[in-house]
Amino acid sequence: MAQKPSIPKGTRDFSPVEMAKRNYIFNSIKEVFALYGFQQIETPAMENLSTLMGKYGEEGDKLLFKILNSGDFLHGMTADEVANTSTLKLAAKFCEKGLRYDLTVPFARYVVQHREELALPFKRYQIQPVWRADRPQKGRYREFYQCDADVVGSDSLLYEVEIIQMIDAVFTKFGARVCIKVNNRKILSGIAEMIGQADKIVDITVAMDKLDKIGLAGVNAELAGAGVPAEAIEKLQPIIELRGTNEEKLATMKEVLKDSETGLKGVEELEWILNTLKVSAGVLKNEVELDLTLARGLNYYTGAIFEVKALDVEIGSITGGGRYDNLTGIFGMPGLSGVGFSFGADRIFDVLNQLNLYPKEAVETTKVLFVNFGEKEMQFCMGAAAQLRAAGVSVEIYPDSVKMKKQMSYANAKAIPFVAIVGETELAEGKVNVKNMMTGEQSLMTAEEMVKQLA
Amino acid sequence: MAQKPSIPKGTRDFSPVEMAKRNYIFNSIKEVFALYGFQQIETPAMENLSTLMGKYGEEGDKLLFKILNSGDFLHGMTADEVANTSTLKLAAKFCEKGLRYDLTVPFARYVVQHREELALPFKRYQIQPVWRADRPQKGRYREFYQCDADVVGSDSLLYEVEIIQMIDAVFTKFGARVCIKVNNRKILSGIAEMIGQADKIVDITVAMDKLDKIGLAGVNAELAGAGVPAEAIEKLQPIIELRGTNEEKLATMKEVLKDSETGLKGVEELEWILNTLKVSAGVLKNEVELDLTLARGLNYYTGAIFEVKALDVEIGSITGGGRYDNLTGIFGMPGLSGVGFSFGADRIFDVLNQLNLYPKEAVETTKVLFVNFGEKEMQFCMGAAAQLRAAGVSVEIYPDSVKMKKQMSYANAKAIPFVAIVGETELAEGKVNVKNMMTGEQSLMTAEEMVKQLA
Repeated sequence: MAQKPSIPKGTRDFSPVEMAKRNYIFNSIKEVFALYGFQQIETPAMENLSTLMGKYGEEGDKLLFKILNSGDFLHGMTADEVANTSTLKLAAKFCEKGLRYDLTVPFARYVVQHREELALPFKRYQIQPVWRADRPQKGRYREFYQCDADVVGSDSLLYEVEIIQMIDAVFTKFGARVCIKVNNRKILSGIAEMIGQADKIVDITVAMDKLDKIGLAGVNAELAGAGVPAEAIEKLQPIIELRGTNEEKLATMKEVLKDSETGLKGVEELEWILNTLKVSAGVLKNEVELDLTLARGLNYYTGAIFEVKALDVEIGSITGGGRYDNLTGIFGMPGLSGVGFSFGADRIFDVLNQLNLYPKEAVETTKVLFVNFGEKEMQFCMGAAAQLRAAGVSVEIYPDSVKMKKQMSYANAKAIPFVAIVGETELAEGKVNVKNMMTGEQSLMTAEEMVKQLA
Repeated sequence: MAQKPSIPKGTRDFSPVEMAKRNYIFNSIKEVFALYGFQQIETPAMENLSTLMGKYGEEGDKLLFKILNSGDFLHGMTADEVANTSTLKLAAKFCEKGLRYDLTVPFARYVVQHREELALPFKRYQIQPVWRADRPQKGRYREFYQCDADVVGSDSLLYEVEIIQMIDAVFTKFGARVCIKVNNRKILSGIAEMIGQADKIVDITVAMDKLDKIGLAGVNAELAGAGVPAEAIEKLQPIIELRGTNEEKLATMKEVLKDSETGLKGVEELEWILNTLKVSAGVLKNEVELDLTLARGLNYYTGAIFEVKALDVEIGSITGGGRYDNLTGIFGMPGLSGVGFSFGADRIFDVLNQLNLYPKEAVETTKVLFVNFGEKEMQFCMGAAAQLRAAGVSVEIYPDSVKMKKQMSYANAKAIPFVAIVGETELAEGKVNVKNMMTGEQSLMTAEEMVKQLA
């Protein structure tokens, strides 16, 4: 036999069971999106490179998969010109299109391109693969799905509240316990302003995040090492040691940030969000925690920042997002505020796997296999199968009257829970012998009784 | 404002309404696939070019989208070497990967690569986009979805029967009347054998297909023009003029093909399929018609051939498929028989559009919009919204207390059927004024009553 064919490194085939689990995840998320009026869109896998280049930094440009122009991609370049052009520039000459790198830039492009058709605020979600020419490693792929939801065209904090509700609803559906962490970019700006160290905000949040591991003295030493002056470190003490309920934290921050208009605005926004969640929207099933060390997407987010941690599995952030003010500015449409979030599908897949949280029905495909004993019996089985399928029961008929053992091992391989046997005796009675593959129990029944029991 | 961004020619954005319609189509098809035990898989967008090249003919190789290798794709080629290498060969040097061109070759690759894990017969379906560097034109795109289902590892005709049942079930679900045409490659081979014109079989089916338009004399003239000898044309007369029920046609064919073993085998197969459909599987809603002019995929199919025509819309084939014997031979795994079919998603989309067959619920997103009259009212609305969402009703709350007109125009733009109004009076009563946007009818009710009425 020839060499086994393979797929490009960093890519994956999704086999039936994985696919069923992924469908369960995406369908559950889609149901929640729909409950809040989010609508699905899709954009092409290929975008013009002019849309993608320069949007992800220099490193990102290199990680874009570029598509060779069809036909004469050299466009009459001479050998000399080729020799004297850098690889990166040659790539730009040879390629006009690239594969999308994320769903954010294509969404921004979509909003600008379709702005006349859109009713604002526009709530969209998008579940599609993205491609990155990253070095593949455990848990990092060159093709992976992103699952993003955004509202653009409104700065109402109601959407922050609803996003937290949606995150809570999704993980409650999954039966996975999570902590929903929130922060606000304006609070971080306020802190930086207060201590006069705007450029050190990332170092500060990174150091603060280590309090549990290295203690207060350790954090202070790290801050000093990062070049934060002693006076500023002094002022940071109440923030580093911030503990207690969200209300207590907000009260402290109000005091600490009393001289920063921006900082106070951030506190006020968070206060509104947390209060509104409490008074008006029923009780969330998961905890929402104010966490000042949350600094994801710091260059991009301008208001709320979200991040979700699984409580029962050691894994990084499984969902995140935030408020931004300038999604579409890169395409010449400034001033559109929005807020969005993204479910990490691969990590959620791993969490549900590790905690064994997939419901049986989500991975079950065929419910009944009719064993095949020959032409006459099969025709009877087809009638019964038609009745079951009409009632929504997934049914297969084994295609040939081969040995029972082979037919049963097919049922086992597909984890089919019921096997239906129609031999000469059953045929004479017009009944089916239904075997429960879990318990081994068998019972003789009519097709109608099967429908009643299995539909 | 900068120039509007755009997408590569031949590609499309799918906006919410189109997306909802497409989801309705794919979900309906998926439900039927599941009832027959077909399981979904997905393969990567990128395949190794060694997997794709040479599988679609010379023209196909040119239509593959190739992905430029990352980094130094020149691999140290000198300017001279570049100058002295053809564009096609350079492309092969610069690119190791390409975008999938269809779902068949990746499926064959998948089966061979995963053969040790698969329980045969293996029933899979796959719904993913494919890419072709074709010249874009009306109805032809460079990125489009294919929707394929196949069973491999069995030559049982039961699967031909079930495929016809599935096609019937899908279009019955859609409410679209279709004709399911069937033929058999062996019958066509038998005809060619009988008249000694194996190489003319395509010309013959093409000419026969024109009987209604150009009459018998016209067909015979076209056959002569295609180089079919007079004696052979004479022998073809009963086949060209074949009319009547499927039974009558089969009876005639049995007589005509009595000296061709292959031909008779084909007749026998079709006879079994049509009889089994009739006696054992309930009544199909759509007509199945034996059509000898059906010759799709002639080089590929070895048994049954299917094709579906919409009866109430002028459009080409909307679904097709057939039995093949050598899907995986190209990857060194010969002798695996299979049968498959493919729904033409774009054309089905057009058919349902033209006949206005999308159910209201399929395109409806948000069911209730709560108008926003201010902070206090909004908090009350959020409580009601939470109750409705818990009952599965899709709800939005307008994010700001702006002018009523603006809020209502949002409801109109999203075609939201119910608008819920909570002003001072309603708030005092703890009730909601629900307006039916179709009838204009308004009624005052509690959140619980809303759930009862709208869930």
